[in-house]
Amino acid sequence: MLKLYYSPGACALASHIALEEAGADYEIQAVNLRAGEQKTPEFLAINPAGSTPALMTDRGPLTQNLVIMGYVAQTYPEANLAPNDDSYAFGRMQAFNGYLASSVHPAMGQLLYAGLEGEARDAALKLTLAKLGVVEDSLLGSPWAMGADYTVADGYLSVFTRWARQAGILDGTRFARLNDHLDRVQVRPAVQRVLAAEGLQAV
Amino acid sequence: MLKLYYSPGACALASHIALEEAGADYEIQAVNLRAGEQKTPEFLAINPAGSTPALMTDRGPLTQNLVIMGYVAQTYPEANLAPNDDSYAFGRMQAFNGYLASSVHPAMGQLLYAGLEGEARDAALKLTLAKLGVVEDSLLGSPWAMGADYTVADGYLSVFTRWARQAGILDGTRFARLNDHLDRVQVRPAVQRVLAAEGLQAV
Ligand SMILES: N[C@@H](CCC(=O)N[C@@H](CS)C(=O)NCC(=O)O)C(=O)O
Ligand SMILES: N[C@@H](CCC(=O)N[C@@H](CS)C(=O)NCC(=O)O)C(=O)O
Repeated sequence: MLKLYYSPGACALASHIALEEAGADYEIQAVNLRAGEQKTPEFLAINPAGSTPALMTDRGPLTQNLVIMGYVAQTYPEANLAPNDDSYAFGRMQAFNGYLASSVHPAMGQLLYAGLEGEARDAALKLTLAKLGVVEDSLLGSPWAMGADYTVADGYLSVFTRWARQAGILDGTRFARLNDHLDRVQVRPAVQRVLAAEGLQAV
Repeated sequence: MLKLYYSPGACALASHIALEEAGADYEIQAVNLRAGEQKTPEFLAINPAGSTPALMTDRGPLTQNLVIMGYVAQTYPEANLAPNDDSYAFGRMQAFNGYLASSVHPAMGQLLYAGLEGEARDAALKLTLAKLGVVEDSLLGSPWAMGADYTVADGYLSVFTRWARQAGILDGTRFARLNDHLDRVQVRPAVQRVLAAEGLQAV
């Protein structure tokens, strides 16, 4: 059976949502990041990068949200979580996810979790708002990230808009579309089950 | 015909190498980052994130190195640039690329291009060496990133080890395997053609 290593509310939430939306048979294993469990020899054997998520499959582990989400979408095609049969459209979706992974997440990670102060924090805030602005103004489709159909990209985006709303930086006017999108994701039954499983509430 | 938007020596080198290794029919278009050409309306219409690479296909643009490289590997399967028929192995390769994109690249970008000084620069250096250390100690296969066969991940890794060697931080003892790997990539005929096309030399 698939086993997802996650930390409540952290970015693995995206992979968790993908598994639940897929109707996959999986179990979850919490990794306590504050206690440093991601740096134990046991966990480093699963993910040498020492971070969550990791998905244990019958072939071995997979890491990186965009890889796990793509793998889940492809192994549960009946769930229609990605344009699996169109390599260009699939690439567009993974490019959206890649922007979240390589631009939005690092900027927000600096802002929210690096303990910055003063000018350094101001710079991280400005960068984060600029990256979210690219999503709001250009990358985000309607009603879902990739347009007409819900895909794994929607669950992934909701992780970062959730953090942003919790941090009080998802301004309702500047980020009207991202706010609507987050609301739309959070009412999905699968997402509500995942939030409950991680001990979280909609924000 | 495919058209790659790149900036000489920047991370698009990875996508450029993939196209050349694939034997693809493509043309290249330089984007002068110092002159801000990535922020012109023309280029933002291709990539709203305002960064290179972007690959124009007959369906429209694709962005993100790991997406472009995966797409090239899949559309030129006879070049054997990825384990295209094994979704787990393909996922492992994209997880390696995802680590480069979301951990190594942001850390090196801060260190080399953000103009940091003093303690902030020291912290960025420490973080970069830690991320490269995970690749050296755990993620890197032999002789190629994913083991026996050359894949697009090798060209991608060489972008960052090239930057590190140019910056004088790819210590021969600490990063013995990464140094060997970079040498192995740089002598490939396709890589030499790409370096020449971008006006670069092996380092
Ligand atoms: N690009 C990776 C990022 C993984 C990541 O940074 N995970 C964080 C939680 S959001 C983590 O486990 N951090 C613990 C640590 O780095 O010590 C992905 O998408 O999976
Ligand atoms: N994650 C992206 C990173 C793209 C990126 O940061 N490109 C840099 C060059 S290495 C760039 O064009 N920077 C120009 C800018 O940000 O203004 C990818 O892999 O394609």
